[in-house]
Amino acid sequence: MSIRIGILGYGNLGKGVEKAVNANADQELVGVFTRRNPESVKLASEQVKVYSVDDLPKMTGDIDVLIICGGSATDLPKQTPVYASLYNVVDSFDTHANIPAHFSAVDEAAVSGGKIGVISCGWDPGMFSISRLYAHSVLPDGKDYTFWGRGVSQGHSDAIRRIEGVKDARQYTVPVPEALEAVRAGKNPELTTRQKHTRECWVVAEEGADLARIEKEIKEMPNYFSDYDTTVNFISEEELKANHSELPHGGSVIYSGATGEKKHVIEYSLKLDSNPEFTGSVLAAVARAAWRMNQEGLKGAKTMFDIAPKYLSPLTDEYLRAHYL
Amino acid sequence: MSIRIGILGYGNLGKGVEKAVNANADQELVGVFTRRNPESVKLASEQVKVYSVDDLPKMTGDIDVLIICGGSATDLPKQTPVYASLYNVVDSFDTHANIPAHFSAVDEAAVSGGKIGVISCGWDPGMFSISRLYAHSVLPDGKDYTFWGRGVSQGHSDAIRRIEGVKDARQYTVPVPEALEAVRAGKNPELTTRQKHTRECWVVAEEGADLARIEKEIKEMPNYFSDYDTTVNFISEEELKANHSELPHGGSVIYSGATGEKKHVIEYSLKLDSNPEFTGSVLAAVARAAWRMNQEGLKGAKTMFDIAPKYLSPLTDEYLRAHYL
Repeated sequence: MSIRIGILGYGNLGKGVEKAVNANADQELVGVFTRRNPESVKLASEQVKVYSVDDLPKMTGDIDVLIICGGSATDLPKQTPVYASLYNVVDSFDTHANIPAHFSAVDEAAVSGGKIGVISCGWDPGMFSISRLYAHSVLPDGKDYTFWGRGVSQGHSDAIRRIEGVKDARQYTVPVPEALEAVRAGKNPELTTRQKHTRECWVVAEEGADLARIEKEIKEMPNYFSDYDTTVNFISEEELKANHSELPHGGSVIYSGATGEKKHVIEYSLKLDSNPEFTGSVLAAVARAAWRMNQEGLKGAKTMFDIAPKYLSPLTDEYLRAHYL
Repeated sequence: MSIRIGILGYGNLGKGVEKAVNANADQELVGVFTRRNPESVKLASEQVKVYSVDDLPKMTGDIDVLIICGGSATDLPKQTPVYASLYNVVDSFDTHANIPAHFSAVDEAAVSGGKIGVISCGWDPGMFSISRLYAHSVLPDGKDYTFWGRGVSQGHSDAIRRIEGVKDARQYTVPVPEALEAVRAGKNPELTTRQKHTRECWVVAEEGADLARIEKEIKEMPNYFSDYDTTVNFISEEELKANHSELPHGGSVIYSGATGEKKHVIEYSLKLDSNPEFTGSVLAAVARAAWRMNQEGLKGAKTMFDIAPKYLSPLTDEYLRAHYL
């Protein structure tokens, strides 16, 4: 019997989850839930129905796991605790400082409903977090470095778009090659923010806009750009569309550890053509784990740290031992 | 309270485990058990006692986890099932074809004794296996490639030493750079054994030995060398000691997957100055997990697939969520 999946939210991530669920032979997409008018939403999966978010409380008998694809700033802190009491849920909450509070809220709801709520899934937090944890656990004497990119940061692209005179923009986060090489060589460098990443901006300006002012505003923007070496390139709308319409991303977690005088370097890296499609694939695999763990009687909030790797796979334990070990 | 660890077997791996246990603040090395005369074994840890293997049945009250550091060919198939009924045990069994049988034997013993027996831990099988499993689970449409090296293969070095006229030898397994690059680029090549790795041999011959015959015997040795491009270098005993006395190893698991037309490459790689010290570090972390899972009432045979990442860490769940997620 298939695991029946619901998706809440149909932005880039929701579409990525949809594609992943359709690619998983053991999962079936039951419906996509939206705060918009359901009739205005066209799914890639033609046979799947779009529902209003208001229908969710009535459909607990039809869905095994609800994958919540909202934003971390305002959507997930509200949505995940609400639906964790009704459904097994999975989210990609990524506001690091607020993870403990989010975990508590989801835990209370999930325990009360006898469900599992897995938060902060994806690649960072997610696969990168797991890599950090395994490395620190195996080699207590060591240091982890995380590099992101080359890839599109949607948050930074949005920040540029909010500047007056900017019509559209795309921002790439780029690791500094020398920093990467020093870390890979086990040199354990102390690196400032500026030494780890550069920021590359592709900007479409409104006609007649003051380009020098826009460039200055970008480069001096606190938190987003002022601590980085930033390059700003003005291009036409057509160029942006032709060359910068995809959402690639990736990066590396590099752990430089030691056993006495012997050094060991562990690296986990991702090169992703599509950030939302890969993240969606992780969420779909975690949905499988959430369902299986709940079937075994487990409940409450979880993260990927709490999930034995085998639960993510549709294959039997026997098959995994015989073929992947 | 510390987790009390025993080590069975004091070869390279046993010494690696000893170093790892001593580096773990939450573990205490209680004793090393040997089939040799205990008085003939000198430990790196001066305060730790060496016991005869015959003492093991009497010490169940003193040891929480026994880490079994024998060879996979003849030691572990006998030892792990025997001691799994008395102790929580961890081993590094790596004869892939016999894993299902070994798992069954250990499971029966561990269940009967109410203990946990974790088999096949280390980096391959072990960390590499986990990487394969995560990747396949997240992206069902894909293919995994494993490259080993550059590193010393002890099995291949031993095979050369058994040739008449060979005094000593060291064999390095080396991945073919072009193959690695093609896989990293997501090209999904079909690779033969010869196209993936080369074998590099450093040989000390007996005085007056027929070098041409030795080289021929190495290159034509079935299973070990005949399917590979092999280079043989004759050197002096002093050179071998000076340049080839370490046991570095490593490698990469590269997974090339897709979501429809989007490609994604996942790579997990290790560069290890010391194979036995890293493997020993993995075994020590798994010993922690075995102990914690047994304290929670779990029993039976396990692999690293069955262990939630958090169990490997000495840190609390709250700390891990706040700092590593």
